[in-house]
Amino acid sequence: MSRRSLHTPAPDAAALRARLDRARAAAAAADTDALLIAPGSDLRYLIGQAGGSFERLTTLVVPADGTPALVVPKLEAPGYADVPAEELGVELLTWVDGDDPYQLVADRLGKPGRVAVSDFTPALHVLALRAALATAEQTLAGPVVRELRMRKDAAEIASLRDAGAAIDRVHARVHEWLRPGRTEAEVGADIAAAIVEEGHVQADFVIVGSGPNGASPHHDVSDRVIEKGDVVVVDIGGPLPAGYNSDSTRTYAVGTPRDADVAETYAVLQRAQAAAVAAVEPGVTAEAVDAAARDIIAEAGFGEYFIHRTGHGIGLDVHEEPYIIAGNALPLEPGMAFSVEPGIYQPGRWGARIEDIVIVTDSGVESVNNQPHDLVVLDA
Amino acid sequence: MSRRSLHTPAPDAAALRARLDRARAAAAAADTDALLIAPGSDLRYLIGQAGGSFERLTTLVVPADGTPALVVPKLEAPGYADVPAEELGVELLTWVDGDDPYQLVADRLGKPGRVAVSDFTPALHVLALRAALATAEQTLAGPVVRELRMRKDAAEIASLRDAGAAIDRVHARVHEWLRPGRTEAEVGADIAAAIVEEGHVQADFVIVGSGPNGASPHHDVSDRVIEKGDVVVVDIGGPLPAGYNSDSTRTYAVGTPRDADVAETYAVLQRAQAAAVAAVEPGVTAEAVDAAARDIIAEAGFGEYFIHRTGHGIGLDVHEEPYIIAGNALPLEPGMAFSVEPGIYQPGRWGARIEDIVIVTDSGVESVNNQPHDLVVLDA
Repeated sequence: MSRRSLHTPAPDAAALRARLDRARAAAAAADTDALLIAPGSDLRYLIGQAGGSFERLTTLVVPADGTPALVVPKLEAPGYADVPAEELGVELLTWVDGDDPYQLVADRLGKPGRVAVSDFTPALHVLALRAALATAEQTLAGPVVRELRMRKDAAEIASLRDAGAAIDRVHARVHEWLRPGRTEAEVGADIAAAIVEEGHVQADFVIVGSGPNGASPHHDVSDRVIEKGDVVVVDIGGPLPAGYNSDSTRTYAVGTPRDADVAETYAVLQRAQAAAVAAVEPGVTAEAVDAAARDIIAEAGFGEYFIHRTGHGIGLDVHEEPYIIAGNALPLEPGMAFSVEPGIYQPGRWGARIEDIVIVTDSGVESVNNQPHDLVVLDA
Repeated sequence: MSRRSLHTPAPDAAALRARLDRARAAAAAADTDALLIAPGSDLRYLIGQAGGSFERLTTLVVPADGTPALVVPKLEAPGYADVPAEELGVELLTWVDGDDPYQLVADRLGKPGRVAVSDFTPALHVLALRAALATAEQTLAGPVVRELRMRKDAAEIASLRDAGAAIDRVHARVHEWLRPGRTEAEVGADIAAAIVEEGHVQADFVIVGSGPNGASPHHDVSDRVIEKGDVVVVDIGGPLPAGYNSDSTRTYAVGTPRDADVAETYAVLQRAQAAAVAAVEPGVTAEAVDAAARDIIAEAGFGEYFIHRTGHGIGLDVHEEPYIIAGNALPLEPGMAFSVEPGIYQPGRWGARIEDIVIVTDSGVESVNNQPHDLVVLDA
């Protein structure tokens, strides 16, 4: 009656304490009396332990002014034994079935004017906290916490490099498994095993989109049998023990592509992806990077077939800020990490996507994925 | 990129449509204009597909009066291809990056007075929906949906029996792996593999709590080396392909228990668990079942060492209604399914728990777990 929780290396207490201090300062700057952080990657970022989300309330109370407290059910408290609470200056407040944990939080905060809950707090707790903290305007902690999380420090960047190298090693082995006559699911299972062999905690997602399935950006795997001439989108990744994620896409062809338009279309995609990566530098906006890829694809007449944003931030979450999308005027800063993954999807026929994780440097951009970007034509 | 979604047998369209109709009637009865159901088990219960929860809004709009609609990002729509939308009378409303999906929901509902969001909807969407539906009181859908979900139909009961039999087969094999000199993690890995071998989609949780670790109800596994004389709590389970979960605990002793008080204490626990199971019948309240176990443990002087509720409902979720806990005056009804799992935890020394999943029948109770309840003393 538990779920497995992550037990992986956490940053040292000094680094975590600095993050907690920055979170409190960011809350104060946002005129927010307290952040309420649910189990998940925000919690892991702040105390080094993601915990697990259950129907019982667990929340890290981070007051703009005052001592942070981890409110946790007594029977789940052992799962936080690795948290250096004392060095972090975090008080542990346990509760047992029958207690009202929401009142416990309210008593801690008095009569706050604004309280922010972390973005993935379950509605179950969101509404109960709203009722218990009736005086407070309830907002999202995401905009506060993301200001910290989207600027990666040196250790986080090193973890993303490790993740990039690990998933590159998997892409370098895809030719071992991707063959005509095998199903996407069979190929996906081999890739998933390799993702773990190459150092990931698990395979978080394995997309093997062959032929028409490649035209569905979020297709995972199916029992479709791969045929000679298929174009196959392989989008894979997962977390390393440090918690930071890999995410990389390459597009393969099983023998010579069946469709005559593949080469020309893929060349457009490749130019678009390279242009978007090249556009990345401090001060450039997220939407400008999206436009750099989108304009090339649109000019070539494929605009309607590029049906998603160009990228998403990555770190402890596979999807986080900053999002590389039209309308996001956020200026990029050194330490920001995100995917650049334009795609062109020909409904019912085939699709292609190229995805690298890049990090904004002081002067430009670094890619943590370095497999060739050409269409990978395999023997068949 | 995507996360892996479940593709497992769904109930037929007629059964799903009946559930949707019951959900709409239950919403009307609760004076609620619409239910907004996020990806997860509530969604799977209603349309046969759990979907995946992302930062992009996916929600099933179930108006008390009107046509249900699945609002889903266009690029995630293929993941719902197996949903028999037409037969269910569910409209598919896709949106693309740049659209405002919350306004899409609001436009669909007009000016509702009360809208209920499913319990595990992320705060990110809860707050945005509240802003877009400014006229509406926002409540939880859980109390409405649980009225349906906690009364299992014949097919669901059959699935829970399958799950119970599958996890019983794993407990019957624990003696193969639980030996002195091995770590909890090593034993846990063998058990996790067997959980899959015996028909589960995955091992959702594997608790191997040896010696002092057994005194932590939510301990999972550690690198502690199991020693002769240890008492070991093994609490395991996961979902079968149909989505229904197993969850069963037995307590083992590796040779003769080290602590002299184990036999007598375990006998109390065994009496308490049997008494709670025996107390189950239609009309009896959830809290009465909790009391049946708790009173015996308390009278024996171990009350302070039984630090959690007696049980939790189970179905598509491992933890769901009804909760078997003091203060829950819910009268049990045929078809309700829940765990009966009292425990006694001796801090720093050892712990014990016995857990069966039981189903309320027309006249009494059926246990889907049927391994012996005695302390299992293994050769060492």
